[in-house]
Amino acid sequence: MLAEIITIGDEILIGQIVDTNSAWMAKQLNSIGVSVKQITSVSDDETHILQALADAEKRAEIILITGGLGPTKDDITKKTLAKYFGMGFRRDEGALEMVTSIFKKYNRPLLDINMQQADVPDGCEVIVNRNGTAPCMWFEQNDKIFVSMPGVPYEMMYLVDDEILPRITSRFKLPSIVHKTILTANIGESFLAKEIEDIEDNLPAHIKLAYLPKLGQVRLRLSAKGENETNLKAEVDEYANQIIAKVKKFVVIDDDVPLEKAIIDIMKKQSLTLSTAESCTGGYIAHLITQHPGCSSVYWGGAVAYAYELKESILGVKESTLTKFGAVSEETVTEMAEGAVRQFKTDYSIAVSGIAGPDGGTEDKPVGTVWIAISSKNKTVAKVFNFSNKRIQNIERSAASALMMLLNLLREDQHNE
Amino acid sequence: MLAEIITIGDEILIGQIVDTNSAWMAKQLNSIGVSVKQITSVSDDETHILQALADAEKRAEIILITGGLGPTKDDITKKTLAKYFGMGFRRDEGALEMVTSIFKKYNRPLLDINMQQADVPDGCEVIVNRNGTAPCMWFEQNDKIFVSMPGVPYEMMYLVDDEILPRITSRFKLPSIVHKTILTANIGESFLAKEIEDIEDNLPAHIKLAYLPKLGQVRLRLSAKGENETNLKAEVDEYANQIIAKVKKFVVIDDDVPLEKAIIDIMKKQSLTLSTAESCTGGYIAHLITQHPGCSSVYWGGAVAYAYELKESILGVKESTLTKFGAVSEETVTEMAEGAVRQFKTDYSIAVSGIAGPDGGTEDKPVGTVWIAISSKNKTVAKVFNFSNKRIQNIERSAASALMMLLNLLREDQHNE
Repeated sequence: MLAEIITIGDEILIGQIVDTNSAWMAKQLNSIGVSVKQITSVSDDETHILQALADAEKRAEIILITGGLGPTKDDITKKTLAKYFGMGFRRDEGALEMVTSIFKKYNRPLLDINMQQADVPDGCEVIVNRNGTAPCMWFEQNDKIFVSMPGVPYEMMYLVDDEILPRITSRFKLPSIVHKTILTANIGESFLAKEIEDIEDNLPAHIKLAYLPKLGQVRLRLSAKGENETNLKAEVDEYANQIIAKVKKFVVIDDDVPLEKAIIDIMKKQSLTLSTAESCTGGYIAHLITQHPGCSSVYWGGAVAYAYELKESILGVKESTLTKFGAVSEETVTEMAEGAVRQFKTDYSIAVSGIAGPDGGTEDKPVGTVWIAISSKNKTVAKVFNFSNKRIQNIERSAASALMMLLNLLREDQHNE
Repeated sequence: MLAEIITIGDEILIGQIVDTNSAWMAKQLNSIGVSVKQITSVSDDETHILQALADAEKRAEIILITGGLGPTKDDITKKTLAKYFGMGFRRDEGALEMVTSIFKKYNRPLLDINMQQADVPDGCEVIVNRNGTAPCMWFEQNDKIFVSMPGVPYEMMYLVDDEILPRITSRFKLPSIVHKTILTANIGESFLAKEIEDIEDNLPAHIKLAYLPKLGQVRLRLSAKGENETNLKAEVDEYANQIIAKVKKFVVIDDDVPLEKAIIDIMKKQSLTLSTAESCTGGYIAHLITQHPGCSSVYWGGAVAYAYELKESILGVKESTLTKFGAVSEETVTEMAEGAVRQFKTDYSIAVSGIAGPDGGTEDKPVGTVWIAISSKNKTVAKVFNFSNKRIQNIERSAASALMMLLNLLREDQHNE
């Protein structure tokens, strides 16, 4: 079964927002055996939305649509859907009740345009949105299903999880789609491909292998589609094991998780604790780690030591070190890492100090110069990196490099035990 | 002039990655006067890519394509482009030189499949990619331009900024597109619309108004397209000023910046300093702030105090407070905020302590319970929120609410001076 996703809104086409809804919906659809054929973003323009709907209807059986359902004049999705299906409008009692109760909850007067949120094309089925005033609308035409949802992520997420997916799974007999991801590090994409060439060449037609390189890591993804989930899983696992056996020393984890999550899991198994001491990454590493439920048994916390004063007071970096070598130096980052282990009483720490840019570089230390140190009770390793002049990327690349260094030290320590 | 963006890769269609490239490219194109008509994501499937290219060619003059240019077998964009344009292959000397030099730099042996990165469809112009081994390819057909770029964000970004945009601007006479965004807070979308109804109804046809609600904030965006940039700017500013005059007390800033950036700018003007004390947001607020260049004169840093021990040792929260009231309580979050102001010697602080979930809730304090405190030297305000059971959203909503509370306290303090 094929699906398409259409996201509507000028803000996407002018790059004011990143469309994160599509990836989330695609993942959920995939998990129940529905393949997404295309994701299309179009502006709040009637002709173009009509065309996108017609194109999607030709290619897919299920079309999920988000956006353009607000109460204001720039939102035209509802009117356009009514036109597409040749429907008039009716006021939906359930939707009106929800709008009324939301305004009551926040003690706000109900305006005419809010009540109009409950007006829907008369041939659609309304699915009540418990988290907002725009109702979700389910249309059927020529055996195709169209679902229109608000673009607000958490409203859309509840609707998809609680309403849309259950309806799809109960109605259709869906195939199974099985993915298995192996996270590798310290090896380039092409070398990896060469190492596992024999395995790749012998994959059956219904199993695909993909390479996803990112920031010094490469994810290998095996994807299989078929009738019997148990058999597919066994088959995919078999090929995954062949690959793992072939490139064992580069494998971080055989799961589709970010590097920091793999590290947390490794440390949790060994009852190890971690803290952070961040300057130029400004809390980004802490944020990466704390996104993941259950991190608190490993990660105790840390400092975002932007100012000199905080590097001294929280982390115990010596004033003389800062004065003599500067904040971006091997000496400072080493003291930051060792200070974190000492002050926060953790087994390991990550410290980062660099010039994220775009300003603040010098001839000696241009923008993109980043010192990273990893400390354990026995040892501190420090390394300098020369990244680019783009701030956000420098932050991301610093974080990825720091996590890689931590992983490598953990492995080395484990090996030495 | 219209453009379309096509992003290629199964990883997008199965939701393994979020396509951030498109928004970035759309913004850059917009800035030089090119409107993006559609963004399309398709899988690594020849037939589908060919169809997407043909569809885009019908609608737009410029088609930017990213992804599918890696050296491994799953990447088929280059072959598919050659087929689309009916071209054979040639080895490009400039591209080969770049591949060779990159492998030399990292001291890695050059494999056959790496050299094949320099094979390109023979009718395209190669634009050397200085940051990776996949060359950028420029095709022209029927007065339409197609540019194929690698999907690795920082490789693509350099190519667009340094190569693609300059070529487009020097070749075409482009219209001006002017956007002006007004960030508002503490007012709902529909109330805002009612307040400025008269202004909206009198907008000329070439100026559009859009409402972008997100986490308690609403962005109003005026967009104008025309010949003369100076005139457009003046016109848009005039309408923006009318709107600002009408809803003054809800306006945070008349610029398209995130809330934290607006706050940094307000604090910088008043020479105020800020620190953070984060538990459940785990460094996310620090990260939001430190994304922005120049934040360091305002933001000194802070603590990510996940463990009880760190709440005590870094922030000076009393053990008895933690034991008696728990980490998620008015008492603890107040001590965290006041501890940050005291220990980090800043004018203001933000403190957050809550249960982000999905586990860890109790009957009294279910998942989504978050206490936030803002402290200045004179005053601490604390407030409890009841969010959802989704971890990432709880972190984001906590951060947005904390920033709103800080903004409101800053305004109150300014008013009282």
